[in-house]
Order: sequence, then C-alpha cells, then structure tokens
Amino acid sequence: MNLSTKHILSIRDLTLKDIELILETATNLQEISKRAVKKVPALRGKTVLLCFFEDSTRTRASFDLAAKRLSADTLTFTSSGSALSKGESLLDTVKNLEAMNPDLLVVRHKLSGIPHLLAKNINCPVINAGDGTHEHPTQALLDLMTIVQTKKKVKGLNIAIIGDILNSRVARSNILLLTKMEAKVTVAGPATMIPADIAQYDVKISYDIRKIIPEADVIMTLRIQREREAECLFPSLREYARFFGLNKETMQSAKKDVVIMHPGPVNRGVEIAPEIADGPHSVILDQVTNGVAVRMALLYLLCGGKEGVE
Amino acid sequence: MNLSTKHILSIRDLTLKDIELILETATNLQEISKRAVKKVPALRGKTVLLCFFEDSTRTRASFDLAAKRLSADTLTFTSSGSALSKGESLLDTVKNLEAMNPDLLVVRHKLSGIPHLLAKNINCPVINAGDGTHEHPTQALLDLMTIVQTKKKVKGLNIAIIGDILNSRVARSNILLLTKMEAKVTVAGPATMIPADIAQYDVKISYDIRKIIPEADVIMTLRIQREREAECLFPSLREYARFFGLNKETMQSAKKDVVIMHPGPVNRGVEIAPEIADGPHSVILDQVTNGVAVRMALLYLLCGGKEGVE
Amino acid sequence: MNLSTKHILSIRDLTLKDIELILETATNLQEISKRAVKKVPALRGKTVLLCFFEDSTRTRASFDLAAKRLSADTLTFTSSGSALSKGESLLDTVKNLEAMNPDLLVVRHKLSGIPHLLAKNINCPVINAGDGTHEHPTQALLDLMTIVQTKKKVKGLNIAIIGDILNSRVARSNILLLTKMEAKVTVAGPATMIPADIAQYDVKISYDIRKIIPEADVIMTLRIQREREAECLFPSLREYARFFGLNKETMQSAKKDVVIMHPGPVNRGVEIAPEIADGPHSVILDQVTNGVAVRMALLYLLCGGKEGVE
Repeated sequence: MNLSTKHILSIRDLTLKDIELILETATNLQEISKRAVKKVPALRGKTVLLCFFEDSTRTRASFDLAAKRLSADTLTFTSSGSALSKGESLLDTVKNLEAMNPDLLVVRHKLSGIPHLLAKNINCPVINAGDGTHEHPTQALLDLMTIVQTKKKVKGLNIAIIGDILNSRVARSNILLLTKMEAKVTVAGPATMIPADIAQYDVKISYDIRKIIPEADVIMTLRIQREREAECLFPSLREYARFFGLNKETMQSAKKDVVIMHPGPVNRGVEIAPEIADGPHSVILDQVTNGVAVRMALLYLLCGGKEGVE
Repeated sequence: MNLSTKHILSIRDLTLKDIELILETATNLQEISKRAVKKVPALRGKTVLLCFFEDSTRTRASFDLAAKRLSADTLTFTSSGSALSKGESLLDTVKNLEAMNPDLLVVRHKLSGIPHLLAKNINCPVINAGDGTHEHPTQALLDLMTIVQTKKKVKGLNIAIIGDILNSRVARSNILLLTKMEAKVTVAGPATMIPADIAQYDVKISYDIRKIIPEADVIMTLRIQREREAECLFPSLREYARFFGLNKETMQSAKKDVVIMHPGPVNRGVEIAPEIADGPHSVILDQVTNGVAVRMALLYLLCGGKEGVE
Repeated sequence: MNLSTKHILSIRDLTLKDIELILETATNLQEISKRAVKKVPALRGKTVLLCFFEDSTRTRASFDLAAKRLSADTLTFTSSGSALSKGESLLDTVKNLEAMNPDLLVVRHKLSGIPHLLAKNINCPVINAGDGTHEHPTQALLDLMTIVQTKKKVKGLNIAIIGDILNSRVARSNILLLTKMEAKVTVAGPATMIPADIAQYDVKISYDIRKIIPEADVIMTLRIQREREAECLFPSLREYARFFGLNKETMQSAKKDVVIMHPGPVNRGVEIAPEIADGPHSVILDQVTNGVAVRMALLYLLCGGKEGVE
C-alpha cells in the first residue's frame, strides 16, 4: 500500500487512509529500536538529506536515527558553513543537492512555506520538519501515535492544547490532525496568543485553563518562546506560569487518567512544573520514542523500501 | 590500471593516461548514483577524512556522498570546534588524525599550498578540494567530464573562461587541464582580474566578452566574490554584470549549441542572468552530478578498491 | 568476561581485572585499524551518541572512528545548534536523546561531574570523555597502554607528570591509574599548579624538573592552557617554558631510553620543544593510535558486542 501523497508538507494533504497507514507502519517498525541489533536493510543505498536551516536537537537526531536504523545514508546541512552564507539562494543550494541524486529531503526552516517551495521545484520527496509558524506534521503524527497508544482511541476524546497557539506550528498541525480524527479539541491561552482566524478550525476556545482541565482526556502544553515576552504577547514568564502553567494546583481538578504531552524542549517551571513533566501522567518521553518510529515509517513509505524490514 | 600519482594536488601532476583513467572510471561509477540501491561495497572498511577548513556545501557533500556510495566511512572536520581553535598547528592536527589510520584525506583550505604541505608530511593519499587561489583539480576534472559528455570531445574546442581569472582556483585548474587536452582556451575579464603571469599558459586573452562569445563552443563563467569589490578589482557589481555578465543580450551572438558552465555558487544577475543559468544551454547541474562521479572515481583509484563495484 | 562497572566515569571505579581486560581487548582490536578493511560487525545495529558539549578534535574523532570500525552508528551533538541554546536543561536534552534508545553515551563537558549526573539518571552506559578539571579516564587508559607497549611493564617504573596538575583531568586520571598499577609517580610544576590536596595521592612532589628528569623512565608533560596566564598561575609562557618545558637542555640528563608523552594538543615551544615532540623518545602519535584501540575496547565491552570481531 502507498501514501496518496509524494511529500509530507502539511497534515491537510493526508487522507484518513494515509494516517492509518503511517501509524500502522510506525507501530510495526517501532520494535526495531528495541532490538539488540537496531537495524534493518530496508533503505540500504538510499540517500537522505537532512537540511536543518533552523536549530534543532531532537528532530534532527530523530530523523537521523530513523534513517540509520533503516540503513539509509544521511547527510546533514545547516545554514552555517554552507553556500547560503556566500549569498546563494536557498533554491539554488537545494537544486545543487538534488543534482547529487538524493532519495529524500527533510527540511526545517524558520520561514513558513519553504518546504512547499522546495517540493514544487525538485523531484525527490520532501518532508517538512517544521516551517516557521506554519506546520510540523511529523510532530502531530507522533503525538497522535502517542495518544492512540495510551488511550487506545482518539475519536471523541477531549483534547486541550494550551499556550501560544498563534505562533505554534505544533499547535496548527495538531489541530488539523486531531479534528480530522474526530477528537474534540479546545485551544487555550492568553487572548494575544489565540489567532484571529481560529474560527476556521473546528475547535473551542478558552482563556481559562482551570475551566477546561476537568474535562480534558489529554492536555498538550506548548513551549513558550521567551522572545515573545519582548513582543508583549504576555506580561512576564511568571504571570504566564501562574495563569497558563500546568502545576500541582492547576492540575488538581484533572481526570485521574489524564495524559500530559509537551513537544519539547520544556521550560521547566513556566508552561509546566517539574513534578508534572516528570509525573505519572506525563508521556513526554514516549513522544520522543514514538518520533523515531513515525519518522522511520515516513522514510520507509516515501522512499519505497523494497527489501525486508525483518 | 593505476594512477601515476599517489595524491591529487594539482592538474600538473596528472598524465594524459591518468586523466583518461579517471574519466573512464567516473563514467562507469556514475551509473551507481542512478540505481535504487546507490551503494557498492568497493571501499567497505576504508576511512576517508574530510578536512574542510574553509566553508563549503557542495564540494563537501559531493565527497561525502561519493565515499558513502562506495561504502567508505567518513569523518568531517571543520575549523570551528577543533584543536586549531586551541592554537595547535595545522600540521599537528593532521598528523594526529593520520595516527588514527585513515585511508585518504580530502582537504580544503583558504591558503594555497596546504594540501602539498600535508601530502609531504603524512603517509596517506591527499586530495586537494580547493586551496586558496591556487587549484581545485577535482572541479576541473568534473568540468572536463561534463564537456566530453555534452560535446563528445574536447580537443580543438573553443573554450572561454570569463571572470576573476586572477583569484580563481577553478580557472587555474581548468586552464591547465583544458590546454593539456588541446582545447583552445581564451580567458576574459576586467584587466585587473587577469594575472600578470598569464603568458606562461597557452591561452588567448580578451577584455571584451562580446568579441569571444561568437566563437565559443563552451563558456565557463566564474563566480564573482563580492569582497573583491572592496579591493577595487572592479567598480561595482552592476558594472561587472553589464560588461562581463552572461545575459540575453550578450548571448545573442553565441553559437546555437554553445554550452554554459558555472562552478557555483551562482550570483544570479551578476556573472550570469537567471534565464541563462536555467536555460537550455546550461549544464550547471550536470556539473554537480558529475562531481559525485569524478570524486567516486578518485576515491576508488587512490584507495585501491579491491571488492567489486557491481 | 565482563567489566565490573556499567559506566566508565572515573578510574576509581575500575578494578585491576577491569584494567587488564580493557588493555587485552584493546590490544586484540588494534589490529583491525591496520587491515585493508578496517571494520568488523561486532556492534552492527548499535547506536552510540557522542555528546561533545566542549570543543574537541582528536577525542571526538577517536570515539567516532572506534564506533565505526565496530560497525556501530554514531550521532554527534555539540552545544551549538542544540536545544541547550534554547534554554533546555542538560538533563532534559540527554533524557530526550535516551528516549531514542541509544546503546551508549559518550560525554565531554566543561563542568566536573556531568557524566556522573547523567549516568545516575539514564539507563544506558556512559563514558566520560573528559569532565572539567575532574577526570579523563580513556586518556589515562590509552596512556597506560602506550607505556606497557613501549616499556613492557608499568609496575615499578618512575613516571614524572609535569605541568598544571591542579587543573588537569588528564593528570588526575593518570595519577589514579598509574599508582593503582604500582608505578612510582612524581608530579612536578609551579607551586601554584600543584593542588593543595595532593597529599591524598600516593605521589612525590617536585618543583624542579631538573631534579626528577634523570630518574624518570617515562615523562608525561601536560598542555599549558594559555588562559591560566591571566589567572596568574604562572608569570609568562616564556618563563614557564624555561623552567618547566622539555627541551634539549632540560632533557640532557634524561635516561637513554626515556619515553616522552603528551596528551595533545601540543603548544610547541612551551611545554615541549619541537625537537623533543618529534624526537626518537616521543610516543605522542602512538598515544593517538592507541586511543582508537582503547575506545574500541570500551565500546565493545560496554555495548556487549555479540558478533565476532574477525
């Protein structure tokens, strides 16, 4: 079976069947990372280019490991030390890389839309590893996998997404994916951080997390970017933590089996208190583990792995 | 058959038989990069060190991919984050790396002559990946491969090299290689950018590209380094583009089957207009593709690949 | 046979049997790096994370090559470009990496104790690749291997360690290891660079290298960090070189078969003169070669390599 799309640019491009196929493949491949020999020959002789034009630890490592565990070769590019610093256009840089016959391009960029631009202009599959404030589809897919693993379903669940909805590509991809899967999504945050066009999505809006926590089956809290303070999107980290942070006090009214998620990196004591991040409801590290599996699945499906995965 | 030289430092060291062998091997190996499984075991268990003490995207990637497609292991070094920043001499850094038993060293450095210095002092083969304003032999070899692929010959062709001949290692290596292959080479550029010792090479000189374009079978335009403007080698980028840039107007008198080359990265609108760089005569991306093949050939020939390439 | 310890954090944790096993394994594996095919499948499918939060060339390269020659996959992390620069705690960064199922973590950090902190909090084996002014156990092990290779024994040898004993993790690990092996160790340096608690170790102290050189079977000189000049630990590099540097004059009274060692990178003309560093008594480059072997042994023993090393 194949995906209906050649690239993974936006959750919008994925059909329900695509999503099902990705999760099923990820679940099958996950077991490889737990073996003594964590490697299968599925993508031997494939070349995967990792173009991380924006800083990243976990996403880059996750893709790199995913590729290596399928026996693909990887090449990593960052902005520094590249021809971009000599004034070459991004498109020229990438077309040059394409001329070396890669099988797949993973791209992260601080500008929204760059992965789409590249996909339109080059021949190999492109995976969006995060573009500006637009989308981060592989994060949403690994979040979905984590929810399904923990809750055994997603349809009908009450899922709260808390934080800077306006600037978060993680929020946007998750809203699109979770509503597609018929979860009931509520977004919450300071009014300055709720996008003006939020009405286009099938979500409820709240400005008070205390009102939505009691109903939530899953709470996804987002990373606060400290530089937003200077933009006056919130008065101070301390005040943000008090009104929108997950901590013992705000979590008192939560369900017994609530699941706590965070895409990382975590600002401990701001959007989430250490005792919640490390507590029994947190699946933050499962998200990371599932990230490798989801990316293995996408590389496998897009590169058309022929050899076995046994 | 073997090369007559242990290192690839300068085009001057290569015999006609060497050049023939390199091109023949590159042509044979090129097909590997087009397979579904782009990998042969020829250099399994070989260690290739990539010492890029000067910024590079495509050359570094090209060598890295070339090595990986032959199953060699690669290790990349850059100036930052290395012992060089602790005041160690370059020779000590490299002798330390040599003590780890690599099979081949690829080196790029902003100082002319560094690859020769290293080759004299260490035991493993060295490939010059560009040294200062001196030479860039693998670029000239991939350019030759591209010309032969397109024109089916090189002997007797009229080849124009346009730009900063004085500071270009690409120009120097190409002049040496193309005249050795009996092409008729003309260099052109502002008088400030033609080296005083140009008479030692068997080339014609022109200061007016309009006079040489009608005769040219191949036009190789060089990257203008913007920092040369400060050195007063040309008055402004705009004026350079007007007098020495390839564009619709200057190309009007060109031959119907002229071939346009550029080593990259391209300054669009300066040495070459976008419609020419992306036009039907341009082989710029073929040069990049052939770069991987030429570097595979050199690694294979210098590391004495024993196992098959099938 | 197995090591008695899961991690390599400090020489203190190693029993005499551990040390014997490491040296024996290293000696067996060393031969691999001299083959035409420098690779065995011992750690195929294992993932080794190289976390170098402090600059390094040779140690990072040494571990990377050691892993690759055993067929393990490696992933390198540095401080720049990582989530650390976004304010994530080191422990969170590493726990995230752990969630990707690595088999071993190599860590270098400018703070003493970081490898211990990580080992306590994560499940996979940790190797200390140098932590602050604390320890650098793999360096001491490769130094021991070099001494045993050259002198055929270590027990009873007079070994002088010269330089900044106070700030040197190399000195500390070597003092612990060499005294454990019953060598007679003398430390020497300016009084400002001898730690106040030196009495806890079983070593002699000297402030005059001319008095100890005639007795020494092995002289290990340490790198002087130029920034210590600003801390007034010594008056000037020139004066340090005159009183504590190894050169023709200070080495006149040395034994005929003295062995000269240095962990690198070398400040030529400061702690060691070029003619001594490059002279017949120097084993500086053997230390580097043995470093790969010792690290191969540690990776092999800690990752529980199952497949053959033939």
